[in-house]
Amino acid sequence: MANPTEFNLPEAIVVLTRTPATLKALLSGLPGIWVQSNEGKDTWNSMDIVGHLIAGECNDWMPRVRTLLQHGETRTFDPFDRFARLKESQEKSLEQLLDEFARLRKENLAALEALNLQPEDLTRRGMHPSLGVVTLSELLATWAVHDLTHLHQLSRVMAHQYRDAVGPWSAYLGVLQCTGHSAP
Amino acid sequence: MANPTEFNLPEAIVVLTRTPATLKALLSGLPGIWVQSNEGKDTWNSMDIVGHLIAGECNDWMPRVRTLLQHGETRTFDPFDRFARLKESQEKSLEQLLDEFARLRKENLAALEALNLQPEDLTRRGMHPSLGVVTLSELLATWAVHDLTHLHQLSRVMAHQYRDAVGPWSAYLGVLQCTGHSAP
Repeated sequence: MANPTEFNLPEAIVVLTRTPATLKALLSGLPGIWVQSNEGKDTWNSMDIVGHLIAGECNDWMPRVRTLLQHGETRTFDPFDRFARLKESQEKSLEQLLDEFARLRKENLAALEALNLQPEDLTRRGMHPSLGVVTLSELLATWAVHDLTHLHQLSRVMAHQYRDAVGPWSAYLGVLQCTGHSAP
Repeated sequence: MANPTEFNLPEAIVVLTRTPATLKALLSGLPGIWVQSNEGKDTWNSMDIVGHLIAGECNDWMPRVRTLLQHGETRTFDPFDRFARLKESQEKSLEQLLDEFARLRKENLAALEALNLQPEDLTRRGMHPSLGVVTLSELLATWAVHDLTHLHQLSRVMAHQYRDAVGPWSAYLGVLQCTGHSAP
């Protein structure tokens, strides 16, 4: 493996900034099989995944940034309910979900920039309910990689729909070998 | 697992159509760490992946469709060199590669539509150099899932760059558990 890279705030922000447009390009206007089909019982379809990303914007990332900056290690982050908003997301259209995610992400990135974080802030510490002590840079890096985890999952959920249709080529298509390690 | 879906030509085309815009939204203008870094020795970075998709447009998908329609099982498809164009792609900018991929995909989808394929054509058979007999629908489904395999790979290659930066959260981020089953 190549050496992974150090965290860099502007480089993380640039990934976070483009996720809404990436999801819109990938999903907006797709027929039902690509957005309403999942990988089987108790798995997520594309709409559930966008709903989960919306939940993160509301309840997870920036609220935890604020908790960390205000309280350090003395206050544990509120737990993040990974299944939050799944019900609400099922009552909206995919277009509504994509627009809502884009709006919330834009607001959250504006709030992040308004904090005017300095390099020394990135080592400040907070308390995760199960992982223990974490740093602000770890939290922000995780926000970006969480986007990528769900893009990884989306490509897998979509590919699953053609698992049989590809016939013998399935042996060559890596995404079809992915056994759900990136499930919710 | 949910029952996978039957192949449907318009539904496959809609996925193939949007891949160039998805890749552009995800990658265009990103700083070097996200597009020039790979997962270690003999692995691909984002630019290599786009170069490989370009090679598929030139040498693989539509050429094989034509071979199948013209020769059926009597002529084996030309083998696809998965490493073709890696060198050329390393001499171009990412923006050039994204534009070239978009142009070639558009031309190939126009050529596909011009074939005016009928439902009965989808069961026509061709000969793969190692998989043996395959059908036209399997070839076209594979073209779409191949896009998704490389989107899956792109998200993993990008996430790898922050493997250390996320600290203890790495245990929760599925994309970081992906062991490269979707490698080239």
